[in-house]
Amino acid sequence: MDSKPRDTGLSPSVRVIPLGGLEEIGMNMTVFEYGDSMIIVDVGMSFPSDDMLGIDMVIPDFSYVLQNADRLKAIFITHGHEDHIGALPYLLKQVHVPVYATKLTQGIIEGKLEEHGILNDVRQVIVQYGQVVKAGDFRVEFIKTNHSIEDAAALAISSPAGVIVHTGDFKIDYTPVFGDMADLQRFAELGRKGVLAMLCDSTNAVRPGFTPSERTVGKTFDHIFAENKDRRILVATFASNVDRVQQIINTARRYGRKVVVEGRSMVNVIGKANELGYINIPDGTLISIDELNNYPPEQTCLITTGSQGESMAALSRMAASIHRKVSILPGDLVVFSSSTIPGNEKSVSKVINELEEKGAVVINHDTHVSGHACQEEIKLLYSLVRPKYAIPVHGEYRHRKAQADVVAELGIPKENIFMINSGCVLELSDDHAGVVEQVPSGAVLVDGLGVGDVGNIVLRDRQALAQDGIIIVAMTLEKYSNQLLAGPDLVSRGFVYIRESENLMDEAQQVCNDAVFGCIENHVTDWAKIKNTIRDDLGSFLWKKMKRSPVILPIIMEVE
Amino acid sequence: MDSKPRDTGLSPSVRVIPLGGLEEIGMNMTVFEYGDSMIIVDVGMSFPSDDMLGIDMVIPDFSYVLQNADRLKAIFITHGHEDHIGALPYLLKQVHVPVYATKLTQGIIEGKLEEHGILNDVRQVIVQYGQVVKAGDFRVEFIKTNHSIEDAAALAISSPAGVIVHTGDFKIDYTPVFGDMADLQRFAELGRKGVLAMLCDSTNAVRPGFTPSERTVGKTFDHIFAENKDRRILVATFASNVDRVQQIINTARRYGRKVVVEGRSMVNVIGKANELGYINIPDGTLISIDELNNYPPEQTCLITTGSQGESMAALSRMAASIHRKVSILPGDLVVFSSSTIPGNEKSVSKVINELEEKGAVVINHDTHVSGHACQEEIKLLYSLVRPKYAIPVHGEYRHRKAQADVVAELGIPKENIFMINSGCVLELSDDHAGVVEQVPSGAVLVDGLGVGDVGNIVLRDRQALAQDGIIIVAMTLEKYSNQLLAGPDLVSRGFVYIRESENLMDEAQQVCNDAVFGCIENHVTDWAKIKNTIRDDLGSFLWKKMKRSPVILPIIMEVE
Repeated sequence: MDSKPRDTGLSPSVRVIPLGGLEEIGMNMTVFEYGDSMIIVDVGMSFPSDDMLGIDMVIPDFSYVLQNADRLKAIFITHGHEDHIGALPYLLKQVHVPVYATKLTQGIIEGKLEEHGILNDVRQVIVQYGQVVKAGDFRVEFIKTNHSIEDAAALAISSPAGVIVHTGDFKIDYTPVFGDMADLQRFAELGRKGVLAMLCDSTNAVRPGFTPSERTVGKTFDHIFAENKDRRILVATFASNVDRVQQIINTARRYGRKVVVEGRSMVNVIGKANELGYINIPDGTLISIDELNNYPPEQTCLITTGSQGESMAALSRMAASIHRKVSILPGDLVVFSSSTIPGNEKSVSKVINELEEKGAVVINHDTHVSGHACQEEIKLLYSLVRPKYAIPVHGEYRHRKAQADVVAELGIPKENIFMINSGCVLELSDDHAGVVEQVPSGAVLVDGLGVGDVGNIVLRDRQALAQDGIIIVAMTLEKYSNQLLAGPDLVSRGFVYIRESENLMDEAQQVCNDAVFGCIENHVTDWAKIKNTIRDDLGSFLWKKMKRSPVILPIIMEVE
Repeated sequence: MDSKPRDTGLSPSVRVIPLGGLEEIGMNMTVFEYGDSMIIVDVGMSFPSDDMLGIDMVIPDFSYVLQNADRLKAIFITHGHEDHIGALPYLLKQVHVPVYATKLTQGIIEGKLEEHGILNDVRQVIVQYGQVVKAGDFRVEFIKTNHSIEDAAALAISSPAGVIVHTGDFKIDYTPVFGDMADLQRFAELGRKGVLAMLCDSTNAVRPGFTPSERTVGKTFDHIFAENKDRRILVATFASNVDRVQQIINTARRYGRKVVVEGRSMVNVIGKANELGYINIPDGTLISIDELNNYPPEQTCLITTGSQGESMAALSRMAASIHRKVSILPGDLVVFSSSTIPGNEKSVSKVINELEEKGAVVINHDTHVSGHACQEEIKLLYSLVRPKYAIPVHGEYRHRKAQADVVAELGIPKENIFMINSGCVLELSDDHAGVVEQVPSGAVLVDGLGVGDVGNIVLRDRQALAQDGIIIVAMTLEKYSNQLLAGPDLVSRGFVYIRESENLMDEAQQVCNDAVFGCIENHVTDWAKIKNTIRDDLGSFLWKKMKRSPVILPIIMEVE
């Protein structure tokens, strides 16, 4: 690519390339290009879907970025949630550019880099709101927003082609618990000067109205604590929601309770927030989990992870009586200060059942507000920024489509609203806009230490194994003579419990014997043919007999 | 057991034994015993939970019933939903007693028995509301209720110990679409005479208020059809909700649309309902799916299965463009007339995204009412029946606990409210009540044609296989000399894609070679020891290298 935009007579253009975050929530990553300058906004991970058996994490396909690594100037992070920073260590092992973010965000990233052993290899730069970072032909300004984690930022990304606003994840909270409300004036100012495009959070775009202030949850806690003075109170919430934890601590303190924070990820985030001054924990409020039993239950409050019913989280372990230090007591009040993320409904139900069976009282509604903008907030932000082009991001198709519909109502022409997919290269300038090409994108699977070595074939195998198990048919043949020296031996895993199905396995053995002897008698020497015969004969026998299709794996060994 | 209750000086007692339906929704089955008479109410199935890999269906453990089959007099079915009749064919292959149910319920059961090839072996008796069936020492009366399928019944089960009311699944609908409202007068009459106990549906016991009438959905359809005269309309709903289908047909007809019913289970149920007179389809309204293209789209309406995003259901296939006869057209209106069952959220989202990507408009709210009683209806029924003992059934613990709390508010003493688990034998009489013993109960897994042959060991194997796949290490040893004749050969499935991981597999091969040669050099002849060495060495190598734990399966063959 030329170092300058081609002189086409057209206005200069900027290229926007989302590499994730559009098919489903998670794995947010967007590339911006102008001339030979490239920057990246967010490098998130996402959780595997149900059919990705054994997979730990999904990260974006970095290949386009790696092929163009010489042009990459910097990485900008909007906030410290996993779906925006989770894949960062994997990218930073392969590219060496500075990472710009606000203070708390950098604090959380630091922990990740440390875990991956690359903390010293990365240049982390803390940015203030209002500060402008130069990166190649780009100038990137951080703008204060509100979200369910502190220090969230929108970005105003300027290039000779114009200004693009990337909202990050946001809501508008007029009365935030910590820090300032979103900098609406700056958005307005940018809008007056002219904004080329806005990439805007779609998470709640299907919901009418305005997301309530985080502070409203504090009032709810006050009511709950006032009405439950004789109970121990446990509150489960998202580990990274520092403001929520702050409010629980405030209320607990007002009601003279000592507070325990439990759950590894929460202890980490709150520790980091405390160290950096993002949470105010009065002396004498926090106690360690080992001190819990020194106080009467009704004078304590536990703040824990596990609001999604995650089996290894603190609350789930307490509910299942496998937590080492805390047992649920009859009369305990457990508050889920969270919404259930789609897919987690059954796990959450399971935990609630277990808690109630132990005599706990559970509150699971009206104790959470979202961190994402609803329709009225989206309208407000578009009305301040008035971008020429609207690009709904951060959501499944139906969420982004809902934003597109909202935006169309505001008068932005339909041809200026872009519903794009991952890998689309959207070229934008004052006088033209459109998808000009497609670059590689998609989900790269992380399984243990392996990145990308589990693909569709391996997943299909795992699904087949999970469905009906495997039967191995092993035998030894003599070289040249093709005489059967040992076997066929049948070994199964995940198919049937042998002791209860001896007859079936005896019959299966007979089927294999017949298949093998048949081949030998017919002087079949082609191993592939012998294996196919075993697979076909045993497969159709088991289907007919059991309506099951285990993986059948013949293994032939050869002895001279 | 004696033919008469023991003469203990106490009032005669009846035994209530739930064999399912209490741990989670599904698999409803309750045994009632008096003296040497035993009857069963409902024999339902449930769907496997996510960790039951490869399992098709879960049914109750029949062993207690089979051990006492000589005492079993009859089976009573409250209504035709799968969680009340799904396991019936499996039981009826082993016991031979009449099955009593209302007409539509029997019609649906008939289809199931036919599928299982036992239709001619079973005596199905159609019962009218108000009719009393004698079965040993029991007399069972069918009482009209309302539910999301027609012909639902509560049962009044009389024995010398008193009357027990089993509500079945119910709501109270003052303006049902078909047939009469629940027979509140009969419940009141029973109550005045004295009822020993009531087993009551807990599904919606966590919800305050009153479930709206099914008829309210009809009004919503009228609005939707009035506002969408220029679109084709597709409505997805539960296959068995005949009244819902009736209302969609009524509205479609009012707006001059032809109706197609699509989806195997829906075609079956609606066919049966039509044949038995439970649905009124005016001539000329219904057309076959092949005639669909003879009409302009805006003059047609499709009623389909797939409201839960089930991958093989009609709507999902249309959304994924793999339906053989119907393609989604831009501008189509798709109405989900259903609530999403917990666990299906992601599948439903996927289908909605696909529909919207094809340009369809989706309505997914305010187009469904539940078939189960909310708190006010539960209070009403308890107030009419006024049982001495309350037994919340049909729900997870938290649902049943919510009913227990509601019932306690009505003044039933806490010690007369029984939160029992499957397999509990609850003995009830006028002057005493309590759990006296425990009988075998639990989930029996159905996989293909196998019933109960997949147990915990097999499931654990499937989970392990699903997680990281399997590596088979095969070798041939010479008998007596223990010399290695062939192998060790490594074969893997679901572990890594070999071509991308050649180095890793080469190293793994070396680890196995070292393990095997090490054993041979040390004259280890115990095969179990050789296998353990391979498992340990290869296992720790792979964990160290990859943080993965595939199933490692050494196979040793022996040649003379």
